[in-house]
Amino acid sequence: MIKTTILRTKKPRLKSPILVEGLPGVGHVGKLVAEHMVEELGAKKIMEIYSPHFPPQVIVQDDGTIRLVRNELYAYKSKGKQDLLILVGDHQSATNEGHYELCGAFLDIAEEFKVKRIYALGGYGVGQLVETETVLGAANNIKLVRELKEYGVEFRANEPGGGIVGASGLLLGLSELRGIDAVCLMGVTSGYLVDPKSAQAVLKVLCKLLDIDVDMQALSERASEMEKIVAKLREMEEGKTPVSSEEDLRYIG
Amino acid sequence: MIKTTILRTKKPRLKSPILVEGLPGVGHVGKLVAEHMVEELGAKKIMEIYSPHFPPQVIVQDDGTIRLVRNELYAYKSKGKQDLLILVGDHQSATNEGHYELCGAFLDIAEEFKVKRIYALGGYGVGQLVETETVLGAANNIKLVRELKEYGVEFRANEPGGGIVGASGLLLGLSELRGIDAVCLMGVTSGYLVDPKSAQAVLKVLCKLLDIDVDMQALSERASEMEKIVAKLREMEEGKTPVSSEEDLRYIG
Amino acid sequence: MIKTTILRTKKPRLKSPILVEGLPGVGHVGKLVAEHMVEELGAKKIMEIYSPHFPPQVIVQDDGTIRLVRNELYAYKSKGKQDLLILVGDHQSATNEGHYELCGAFLDIAEEFKVKRIYALGGYGVGQLVETETVLGAANNIKLVRELKEYGVEFRANEPGGGIVGASGLLLGLSELRGIDAVCLMGVTSGYLVDPKSAQAVLKVLCKLLDIDVDMQALSERASEMEKIVAKLREMEEGKTPVSSEEDLRYIG
Amino acid sequence: MIKTTILRTKKPRLKSPILVEGLPGVGHVGKLVAEHMVEELGAKKIMEIYSPHFPPQVIVQDDGTIRLVRNELYAYKSKGKQDLLILVGDHQSATNEGHYELCGAFLDIAEEFKVKRIYALGGYGVGQLVETETVLGAANNIKLVRELKEYGVEFRANEPGGGIVGASGLLLGLSELRGIDAVCLMGVTSGYLVDPKSAQAVLKVLCKLLDIDVDMQALSERASEMEKIVAKLREMEEGKTPVSSEEDLRYIG
Repeated sequence: MIKTTILRTKKPRLKSPILVEGLPGVGHVGKLVAEHMVEELGAKKIMEIYSPHFPPQVIVQDDGTIRLVRNELYAYKSKGKQDLLILVGDHQSATNEGHYELCGAFLDIAEEFKVKRIYALGGYGVGQLVETETVLGAANNIKLVRELKEYGVEFRANEPGGGIVGASGLLLGLSELRGIDAVCLMGVTSGYLVDPKSAQAVLKVLCKLLDIDVDMQALSERASEMEKIVAKLREMEEGKTPVSSEEDLRYIG
Repeated sequence: MIKTTILRTKKPRLKSPILVEGLPGVGHVGKLVAEHMVEELGAKKIMEIYSPHFPPQVIVQDDGTIRLVRNELYAYKSKGKQDLLILVGDHQSATNEGHYELCGAFLDIAEEFKVKRIYALGGYGVGQLVETETVLGAANNIKLVRELKEYGVEFRANEPGGGIVGASGLLLGLSELRGIDAVCLMGVTSGYLVDPKSAQAVLKVLCKLLDIDVDMQALSERASEMEKIVAKLREMEEGKTPVSSEEDLRYIG
Repeated sequence: MIKTTILRTKKPRLKSPILVEGLPGVGHVGKLVAEHMVEELGAKKIMEIYSPHFPPQVIVQDDGTIRLVRNELYAYKSKGKQDLLILVGDHQSATNEGHYELCGAFLDIAEEFKVKRIYALGGYGVGQLVETETVLGAANNIKLVRELKEYGVEFRANEPGGGIVGASGLLLGLSELRGIDAVCLMGVTSGYLVDPKSAQAVLKVLCKLLDIDVDMQALSERASEMEKIVAKLREMEEGKTPVSSEEDLRYIG
Repeated sequence: MIKTTILRTKKPRLKSPILVEGLPGVGHVGKLVAEHMVEELGAKKIMEIYSPHFPPQVIVQDDGTIRLVRNELYAYKSKGKQDLLILVGDHQSATNEGHYELCGAFLDIAEEFKVKRIYALGGYGVGQLVETETVLGAANNIKLVRELKEYGVEFRANEPGGGIVGASGLLLGLSELRGIDAVCLMGVTSGYLVDPKSAQAVLKVLCKLLDIDVDMQALSERASEMEKIVAKLREMEEGKTPVSSEEDLRYIG
């Protein structure tokens, strides 16, 4: 395999589909949201994307069988006005050039389905434990920025300061060149831990934007579990000097 | 040389061949088994595989001559129902993309010979000295898993936790996409030392699976030598605090 | 996107254009000069250059919109004898091979516009705070060296000792192979801080060479601000032992 | 520039040419020998080899002009039976794949000139100061090994242990696949310092092998200078404990 290879099922007919991307990243926020949606909505897998830009690795599953690392595209036929395409996966590209190639491939698919809007989901790591549920936004045109503000998405000048790196950022940037509306929703998170609470915050906003209902029970339970862990970490912290407290959490999640 | 290049002898006729892969890896378990089989069975070299994805390196041999690092394919015509192809080599690919390309090339060869099953051999490093002879398995379909269990191969849910990385893993993953049955046999090993004892354990299982006999004398002797070294290391250990004992062995093998 | 991609406006007619390159580098000297010229001269953007050799990153702008990292080419129609092309950007190539490819693409553009001379701008980091305004030069033929000396550009045998690495160096080297005159102007700078003062020194020489006037107010103000910061750093230094003084500034800029 | 590019003069007619390679490496032994030969023999440059696999760098020369890093091929018409091609350069490839590509290009040239033998020159770093003049050999067939032994070249089983890495090794390995005789002559050297004395030892053997005379004055002077430096280092050493002595020289050359 020397090229990115896509295995497809029969192409479904989708009405005005929206593409939601949730690949692994900071706090696994995007991945948690997108995988939760696939599960709760019962979306159907329509593509498997393999690439030499992913690590040369197979995942061993519960039953002893393996599968090659990949990205997957799911389709969800809604009762509302617009259907969904949901992109999830084991890895993002392992190389810079691979990011450009893979995001180009994702947008070829988006164009094939005449996707008019993309929601790229991710986390924004701020380096300390986060109390509030904040969703930061970025978009590839100003109309989208205005719309998102009405849904409670926050915009901060020049934030994230280092820009948005990886698949989510590149999807927005390359979409602009193809004239596709694209939005990045970033759950503010510590960056130290897998963060289902931040994922919940992103999912709430996304559900409003998409005008759909998604049961949040499973995500909520994972958030509760994680909050207990964080509470314990905080207790441990309080026994220490405040200066070193953040340092100690850095390598946990 | 800008592409992977294969030098071939006249193509042998093989009946229902099985491909055994034993490239260098954890504890050199796979390499030890495959090279031992080539030696003991008197298998004949039928291909040399050179690639810019290997390091730019030649090996200096005993007599002062050199040879370019490469992988090699050997053929063994058995008296039983199925012949063998055995893949050995100096290196695996030095890059991610190279792994995909080379494993693709190996599977092109497998298809050319109508190989129906692949045994990818390797070691599974557990980070401490191992007493028992355990062979862990993974396979690219559930029928194979069931069959292997009958031969004493162990399967543990989600183990190895990091998946299987490199040629062995990729051979399984890419085989699945081509509809070829493939199995990974991993000798449990410390990961610190070259491990002929673990190789013996793998070879025993493999011989049963292939229904062939392979003299184990040479491998057994190497295992004995290594056991003496390990025994000495253990003695050294006992003079120390148990906490640091493993640490001291880490950079030996 | 698997190739470098150039978006163009209608091609302007330019008389005997000179190409000025100011991509990010040591002290951001070249970037400061080139961006200042674009601003002050009101040059018009005629090309956007995107490439998989840039990082997979978008920049978040003040208004919450993003743009994909890129290089940009601006054109300035002067009242004098020669028009200008000015190359600026967010990044240089992230890989060695990418540098060769991108500089090749820049020179294709230069040839398309029949550019006869290139000024590549940069900084030369000397590892300590710099008092004087020195502009070091290098050129791809001896006639240019002689001409530049008359404009106060300094030449020092075998300096910079490590050669000139990256886009500026490569533009000179590859230009020579295409028979295009090219000059590198390097503002001597500490290398620790963004250096608008060094940028001013380079701009003064460049204006004389191009026989144009560029208002330096904005750059001068930034230089004053930076001088205040440097003065504070010096004060901090004086409270310390002279040996360690430079060390302490090393990771600030 | 996205490919290796070769600039050529008119092709000279050479009788039974021998290719001598001396690119930068351990102790710069090969480079010192090959550049010395070009100088003393008055060999003529017939090719410049540029490549995106070299670093993106220009070298600033004494007069302020630059030149792009490259490899160069020189031709020497001897009065004896065989002419010489001498390969020198600023860098070896910066990537693994580049080594394979460039050595392939060198061998294309060798075949074009019907070169029948290649001498690849290098240093063999042993990690401590070396008193004796030893030249270690390796060759791509056993006849060459026997011949070299008669000229005092040493062969040690499996040495260098790590094989020969880079252009010299790869030239031998790839030559074998093309049926070209190739020899590697390695001057034993500390590996810490540029080593003109080791270069002299290699040159002496090479002159005997080629049956030519090369004035060694210049190389001898450089060796004397370096010996003074080494003597000083030894004095410094003697004031210290013998255990740490080698360590202290490690980062000088």
